[in-house]
Amino acid sequence: MTWRADILTLFPAMFPGPLGDSLAGKALAEDKWSLKVTDIRDFGLGRHRSVDDTPFGGGAGMVLRPDVLDAAIGAVADERPLIFLTPRGTPLTQSRVRALADGPGAVLVCGRFEGFDQRVIEARGGEEISIGDYVLSGGELPALVLLDAVIRLLPGVMGHAESGVEESFSEALLEYPHYTRPALWEGHAVPEVLTSGNHAAIAAWRLEQSRQITQSRRPDLYHQYIASGAHAP
Amino acid sequence: MTWRADILTLFPAMFPGPLGDSLAGKALAEDKWSLKVTDIRDFGLGRHRSVDDTPFGGGAGMVLRPDVLDAAIGAVADERPLIFLTPRGTPLTQSRVRALADGPGAVLVCGRFEGFDQRVIEARGGEEISIGDYVLSGGELPALVLLDAVIRLLPGVMGHAESGVEESFSEALLEYPHYTRPALWEGHAVPEVLTSGNHAAIAAWRLEQSRQITQSRRPDLYHQYIASGAHAP
Repeated sequence: MTWRADILTLFPAMFPGPLGDSLAGKALAEDKWSLKVTDIRDFGLGRHRSVDDTPFGGGAGMVLRPDVLDAAIGAVADERPLIFLTPRGTPLTQSRVRALADGPGAVLVCGRFEGFDQRVIEARGGEEISIGDYVLSGGELPALVLLDAVIRLLPGVMGHAESGVEESFSEALLEYPHYTRPALWEGHAVPEVLTSGNHAAIAAWRLEQSRQITQSRRPDLYHQYIASGAHAP
Repeated sequence: MTWRADILTLFPAMFPGPLGDSLAGKALAEDKWSLKVTDIRDFGLGRHRSVDDTPFGGGAGMVLRPDVLDAAIGAVADERPLIFLTPRGTPLTQSRVRALADGPGAVLVCGRFEGFDQRVIEARGGEEISIGDYVLSGGELPALVLLDAVIRLLPGVMGHAESGVEESFSEALLEYPHYTRPALWEGHAVPEVLTSGNHAAIAAWRLEQSRQITQSRRPDLYHQYIASGAHAP
């Protein structure tokens, strides 16, 4: 069954964008997922198709009107999860990505300006998702990121070269470093254990590298890993 | 001075992609930033322009060769930060974005397959950055995300409508909810305080909303906020 993505945006030309190439583009051409893009401005009010207004209570920026946004959502919503991309959302995780990939699709709402009128999110039972702790010019790139993460997990999308890849966040630790030919490059040799043929030693070295890099770069993940008891023999 | 972005990728057609539109596209046309895209395959080996090989120590996936990648980097590298987009990197934050925007530009290396040969990253003194805890098909979308975050902060890029926007992650708390006209929408009224005209009460309500949503969705950020003493009067 085709995984169905609907996008609501003020910049429909941004889609499929990078998802028209490579893995995702091939999967789109093969109907492994479908993409429908709706321009929120088509539901705008008056001659100028106005979509936003100033915030109640004051402040800079403009807010997407609830009536306009709700009409746009109403045109595409069904049983699929309704997701608003916003920096105040719950952080996107690989487990949420996997759950979305196991479902029928998603309706993704991309904001611009200050944000969405909160009443629509609540009335529609929407989910607010953030892709990270930084501020972007809109929700379009986050929607593309979420879709890319989901699409690579859909059945038949990843070929042999990619399919066995160990995934950083399904393992609770960051990945160990990678090395390939040439074995000696500009005076830098690959770590000796990797050419030893000793599979147990290689596995132990990789795990130790993963632990070290996680402890150093992501004390938050490392703490979870220790707390989970996964490190114990 | 123009902020200069160089991208190294196996999918040059993905750029500028969504950054050709909207704020970033306008800023690109106005030379507020520049974009040069280099195809790593141009530095590939042999008749097939081979760029990758199997990992030493075994495992699925392919690894970008150090000699190929280093040659591609050598063609564009200068004093700008050299950034490898990878899920094992340090998480991108708004303060790193701001520091990059204050600099001359960046060289962004996008991986595909399993990853990069670690020797290049170390020999070149590169920085590994992750945009979030999920797995993507490559570093191209992360590079676009990083650029979008930087570009909106460059001088003269944000117009009046966007310029005063309070930024979630410069405030240590997630943003309060937004409301705009109509004041009564399908039986849902905006919170009364926002139409009271009492600016102190509005500010207090918004702060309390920010605290509540941060505590509920991001206990990690809330803990930092409390520890920083910023909540004390």
